[in-house]
Amino acid sequence: MGEFDFIADCLAPLAGPQGLGLLDDAALYTAAPGRDLVLTQDTMIEGVHFPKGHWGADTAEKLLRVNLSDLAAKGATPQGYLLSLSLPDGFDGKWGKGFALGLKAMQDEFGFSLWGGDTTKTPGPLTVSATLIGSVPSGKMVGRKGASPGDALFVTGTIGDAVLGLDIALERKIDAASGEAIWHWENAYYRPQPQLSARRMLRDYASAALDISDGLISDAGHLSKASGVGVTVNVDDVPLSTATRLWLAAQKDRKAALSRLLTGGDDYEILFSTAYPQGVIAAAKTLGIEVTRIGEITEGQGVTARSRSDVWNFDRPGYRHF
Amino acid sequence: MGEFDFIADCLAPLAGPQGLGLLDDAALYTAAPGRDLVLTQDTMIEGVHFPKGHWGADTAEKLLRVNLSDLAAKGATPQGYLLSLSLPDGFDGKWGKGFALGLKAMQDEFGFSLWGGDTTKTPGPLTVSATLIGSVPSGKMVGRKGASPGDALFVTGTIGDAVLGLDIALERKIDAASGEAIWHWENAYYRPQPQLSARRMLRDYASAALDISDGLISDAGHLSKASGVGVTVNVDDVPLSTATRLWLAAQKDRKAALSRLLTGGDDYEILFSTAYPQGVIAAAKTLGIEVTRIGEITEGQGVTARSRSDVWNFDRPGYRHF
Repeated sequence: MGEFDFIADCLAPLAGPQGLGLLDDAALYTAAPGRDLVLTQDTMIEGVHFPKGHWGADTAEKLLRVNLSDLAAKGATPQGYLLSLSLPDGFDGKWGKGFALGLKAMQDEFGFSLWGGDTTKTPGPLTVSATLIGSVPSGKMVGRKGASPGDALFVTGTIGDAVLGLDIALERKIDAASGEAIWHWENAYYRPQPQLSARRMLRDYASAALDISDGLISDAGHLSKASGVGVTVNVDDVPLSTATRLWLAAQKDRKAALSRLLTGGDDYEILFSTAYPQGVIAAAKTLGIEVTRIGEITEGQGVTARSRSDVWNFDRPGYRHF
Repeated sequence: MGEFDFIADCLAPLAGPQGLGLLDDAALYTAAPGRDLVLTQDTMIEGVHFPKGHWGADTAEKLLRVNLSDLAAKGATPQGYLLSLSLPDGFDGKWGKGFALGLKAMQDEFGFSLWGGDTTKTPGPLTVSATLIGSVPSGKMVGRKGASPGDALFVTGTIGDAVLGLDIALERKIDAASGEAIWHWENAYYRPQPQLSARRMLRDYASAALDISDGLISDAGHLSKASGVGVTVNVDDVPLSTATRLWLAAQKDRKAALSRLLTGGDDYEILFSTAYPQGVIAAAKTLGIEVTRIGEITEGQGVTARSRSDVWNFDRPGYRHF
């Protein structure tokens, strides 16, 4: 299967009207009146962000899930995306078909469409990049900037499952883990759930928000920097799944193990601040979203992580690319 | 220089207000009422689209020029862009600074700004990708679809300079070339001029348009396919620069040499059809743009290339990635 066949057979059926049948080299989009656009881009590389020989559908899903998570944190509704594929020599049509299946599953689940992009050949590893376009009611995007001293700090879902899933992906041994726990962690790593159902709640109540990709502590630092405030995280309050709690209880060095969960990244949960904690709790209940209060916004700068007994320091608060 | 320093020191100064200081993981854009958005994406890889060790500023310029050319062909005005950088090990701060300089030169020349993107590490070659967002008055985007039998076929500028520039970049010997000619070809290859000044003319008169990246004949084929028409190209009418005309006159096999110019690609001139050839010629004169009528749109399908004496067949009408 060559470039033009791959585009015509696998990708063109995924195109929305904005994609002009992928016969053009541009997409055309008319934003609805009274809406702002939110744009986000993420790139994933074989051997870095997903294992070599990863099934095409899983790669496509992860790429879109990660980008959708960015939109969710902004309170935005996904509209469409552009896709840049750099494919290594010996392009495999089977991979291409799987990749398109994964894209379709995501489009069907979250209601958006392919608008265009670029396909090229690379002497390097498979590299996939997506630019997602979402929209919010005018003036309602939730940024990283906006947290104020006195705000409460919340997080959706549970933290640390994906870093254990990464251990499994890298074939590291995990002690004291049931088969069910392993499935749970793998799923968290490969199929992070973009918290799009939280977007209304975030628009109504959050003063600042971001999705956790680098690690809870590191991303709390991003919020601190963008908003010009201090962030306090009560590490004992950070929500863990049952599987992860059991794992943690079995670790000799609890502090080191918990640190790893808080800095491991890939959670794709949403960390947000709010001046209306009661509103958040009520809205989350209505929407069926798990939220947990894990700290507060203070004067000052940087992240303070503390347990009931001491203050923690993180040498390496999260993932850095270089 | 690490990832966050590179973003803060080199890229953040290039961000428009839509980029939120590059402190967020998304961009925020409010389209002006009465405008449609045009989105385009292009990816370039070291060793494929530009030579290894290429100066950062040149790489940045080519990346943006190529994307701006897509917008020009649609009749769109550039607004902003997202940038995905996959940087190899041993990231070189000097390269990063040069790259930012090239971005700035393009932003200053064409009046648009950086909105965001993604930076990551790759075990493979340097890979840079940009998503450009432009706008047109509502309903005025010029697509690839829309050419009708009877329309005239035009091209801006001259064809074939860039493929000779590529020869120079690849250190192939070019016979019968002056120093000035070599400079001209190199410049055409490294610094294609996005034909943004043609956008008003295209919106007013073109029935279909696209920029020539794969090669004149191949891209004429894309227009043919998208519009469901035949395209006839009179090869003797295709405009050549003085340097390229002199080179062609010195070649033993004129037909093979001319074929190469027509299929070499990287011209980034605009190929377009129009029902108003007189309007095009008058508008081009006013705007100071070179346009040449090189053929016509017919019933049927595919591209017919003919000289005064015969019909030409192209086994390989243009560049294919795989």
